[in-house]
Amino acid sequence: MRVIELNKSVTESNDLDAKNLRDELTKAKVCLINLMSSPGSGKTTLLKRTITDLKDKIRFGVVEADIASDVDAIAIEENGAKSIQVHTDGMCHMDAGMTRRGVFELGIEDIDIAVLENVGNLICPAEFDTGAHVNVMILSIPEGDDKPLKYPLMFSMVDALVVTKYDTKSFFNFDEDKCYEAVKKLNPNVRIFPVSAKTGEGMNEWEEYLLGLKKDM
Amino acid sequence: MRVIELNKSVTESNDLDAKNLRDELTKAKVCLINLMSSPGSGKTTLLKRTITDLKDKIRFGVVEADIASDVDAIAIEENGAKSIQVHTDGMCHMDAGMTRRGVFELGIEDIDIAVLENVGNLICPAEFDTGAHVNVMILSIPEGDDKPLKYPLMFSMVDALVVTKYDTKSFFNFDEDKCYEAVKKLNPNVRIFPVSAKTGEGMNEWEEYLLGLKKDM
Repeated sequence: MRVIELNKSVTESNDLDAKNLRDELTKAKVCLINLMSSPGSGKTTLLKRTITDLKDKIRFGVVEADIASDVDAIAIEENGAKSIQVHTDGMCHMDAGMTRRGVFELGIEDIDIAVLENVGNLICPAEFDTGAHVNVMILSIPEGDDKPLKYPLMFSMVDALVVTKYDTKSFFNFDEDKCYEAVKKLNPNVRIFPVSAKTGEGMNEWEEYLLGLKKDM
Repeated sequence: MRVIELNKSVTESNDLDAKNLRDELTKAKVCLINLMSSPGSGKTTLLKRTITDLKDKIRFGVVEADIASDVDAIAIEENGAKSIQVHTDGMCHMDAGMTRRGVFELGIEDIDIAVLENVGNLICPAEFDTGAHVNVMILSIPEGDDKPLKYPLMFSMVDALVVTKYDTKSFFNFDEDKCYEAVKKLNPNVRIFPVSAKTGEGMNEWEEYLLGLKKDM
């Protein structure tokens, strides 16, 4: 078994756009969270429960990025937060320019936390600074405990990791110790929140974290 | 809730490379399968079981594409098929040139079916013809039944859909009728194989399909 290294071509010049967006949002006291995960990890379910639980404490706005469909934005609006759907026309990530457009079309005057629900994918989104203040990754239990080995960049660059579908742990051979140890090796300062949006387990700690983010702006 | 359409930039000129690779492999009587899915959908687990079950009938070779790690290639070799790991250095897909390099470094003289385990991602891999004869997508039950709405291109372009982790169906609200109906609407001729590599349910039909592919070369 051998390993072949292939080359990539990357577009740059995004970093300044990202910094500018972050600075503007800071001035407006709006915290922007970049939420990243695989497809089907439970991003929208987590968001819906979080918005409902915190509805008297945090005014959320959600930018839903997808290559197609608007099912997520509709689901979010049904939970009482304002949202906007962004179609990336096949692109696998959001950059700072695209994020800026989403956030300002959404409107920031009446929100505390803007959540960018990035395209479902563990690769491309990790490579672009969106301008977010905080990067959060979701890993769902059914995806398996080996993901930190396979997507090291994503796990290295996030501030918090939310481990979702925690109620299904008994069904899958998910070794928490092994997984979290690999994550901490890549990223010693990451906060880890195991949660079940279904049973509510762990939601308190995650929501306290979000209240802290609002407070710090 | 509004929808914003953003633009993409795409690289082309891959189609001829793909056609040439496909023709060469056809002459060599090697069927190339491009296997695509989200991270954690159970691609490697399905492959391991398939290789073991069919070890006296099909000689498999596996090209494992990943942005990092070689855990999958090692797992495949332990099951008796030859394999090679390709690192894409952050790129989210395999194109025909990369696939050619992987397949010929693997060596095709002693295999019937070459499997390209594409990068775990439902977006970029659907946009590039790898040169494969057959495109197969894996959707795992925990990812949810709404994925055809969100990743229509992927579901439209595959010849077969393998629905994995079928033994966990009782745990998730996965509406098979709704899901398969959406898939068939995008892709009327797709073959759908619900399987559990753990319990063996459905594996026979999937393996008969592979035997048919070998026979047709």
